[in-house]
Amino acid sequence: MNYKDHRSIRSFLPKEIDANVLSELLTIGTRASNTGNFQSYCVIVTQEAAMKERLAPYHFNQPMVTQAPVLLTFCVDYNRLEVWSAARHADCGHLNLMGFYNATLDTMLFAQNVAVAAEEHGLGYCFLGTVLYNLEGIISTLALPRGVMPVLTMALGYPAEKPPMRIRLPLEAIVHYERYTPFTPERIAELYHNLETAPFYQEQVRKAGCENLAQLIMEQQYSRATYEKLSAELTRILQKQGFTL
Amino acid sequence: MNYKDHRSIRSFLPKEIDANVLSELLTIGTRASNTGNFQSYCVIVTQEAAMKERLAPYHFNQPMVTQAPVLLTFCVDYNRLEVWSAARHADCGHLNLMGFYNATLDTMLFAQNVAVAAEEHGLGYCFLGTVLYNLEGIISTLALPRGVMPVLTMALGYPAEKPPMRIRLPLEAIVHYERYTPFTPERIAELYHNLETAPFYQEQVRKAGCENLAQLIMEQQYSRATYEKLSAELTRILQKQGFTL
Repeated sequence: MNYKDHRSIRSFLPKEIDANVLSELLTIGTRASNTGNFQSYCVIVTQEAAMKERLAPYHFNQPMVTQAPVLLTFCVDYNRLEVWSAARHADCGHLNLMGFYNATLDTMLFAQNVAVAAEEHGLGYCFLGTVLYNLEGIISTLALPRGVMPVLTMALGYPAEKPPMRIRLPLEAIVHYERYTPFTPERIAELYHNLETAPFYQEQVRKAGCENLAQLIMEQQYSRATYEKLSAELTRILQKQGFTL
Repeated sequence: MNYKDHRSIRSFLPKEIDANVLSELLTIGTRASNTGNFQSYCVIVTQEAAMKERLAPYHFNQPMVTQAPVLLTFCVDYNRLEVWSAARHADCGHLNLMGFYNATLDTMLFAQNVAVAAEEHGLGYCFLGTVLYNLEGIISTLALPRGVMPVLTMALGYPAEKPPMRIRLPLEAIVHYERYTPFTPERIAELYHNLETAPFYQEQVRKAGCENLAQLIMEQQYSRATYEKLSAELTRILQKQGFTL
């Protein structure tokens, strides 16, 4: 299994990850491109069982959180850059929306390079978007100071499953040549046909009692009410961590 | 050259990228993890010389922009998801900070997977952070409608150079075990020693007439004034593209 046929792994063998392997994956992560080579990110490694137990509720108690030998929480880090700048009599003016956003880009390039390297080493992972649902608890548990914001957690370990690959939209739904070409409802129906008729999704829609997949995703799983609440919370926590918005 | 010893390539051979190769890279990109499998991203492919000329000033006329056979502008895309949702009588409530931010994470995982695949195919690339400096011009040139925000551009082609790898911070500056451990100025001095004494950076500091590397990066290259201006601009353009903040 590698990055070309990636599946998210949610069940792991009870096998530790060698410290040298973990270091190698993280080193490869740092080889990803980053803005100005100032590496405005960090990663918190969770290996202690007690820490996994404390983090679990913030990831909605998904079993993989305590089962995975390693959790990696990728963070924007301007704390280190503020200490460096202060020691060098430089003004670090990045604790604002642009600083947070741009550092997020670099953090994600770093994270995906780790992900690719992990699969090459026979490991599997699942990214946990739940970080953004419970920022405050994760910040407190990992003792993240001013300037540090958790972005995404990876549950990492040796796979105990090999699930089928998820279906994706055809490339025509994603790629535009020269200019963005808006979609008509008819074209959307063609492009979404395979996704909407896939048994995996039809079963989910049926179970949820929705009319269709769009309603399942947009109204039940990732609803306006949730996104508006999380938007307000992201704003509040950014300010708490020292970012001026 | 591959993702483990990545160098940014800024000079390209005058050799086109085969359409099948480009499609394969982008398909691999879509295999990256994404939130809820709703793929809230798109990519605009620039191949026409006239379009490169129009985009060039927004990337500060870096020569690679017109020289690269292909530019890929990775975007958050909620336009397609709004058309889909409307056609399915679903309420898409993601045009807010959380929607934009979360879609950005998925856009970057997609982009880095394309990057890894590109290097595996013998291609080279440079990510252009200049997108965030000139959002309005890029949006206009690429005809990006409501719900679409450009995030990062990649200049892609066959390498005409093989620059040395950039030095990175030691892993101890990036990785924390169990909890974030704040840095003392003494520890920072140790961790930054190799970077600060590297001839490449010493030469840059000397040329810029700065006292040290932190001042060069934080006060000249990525200054508070620039970041505050770009923060305000990002807020303004998000609203213009339909996001409620």
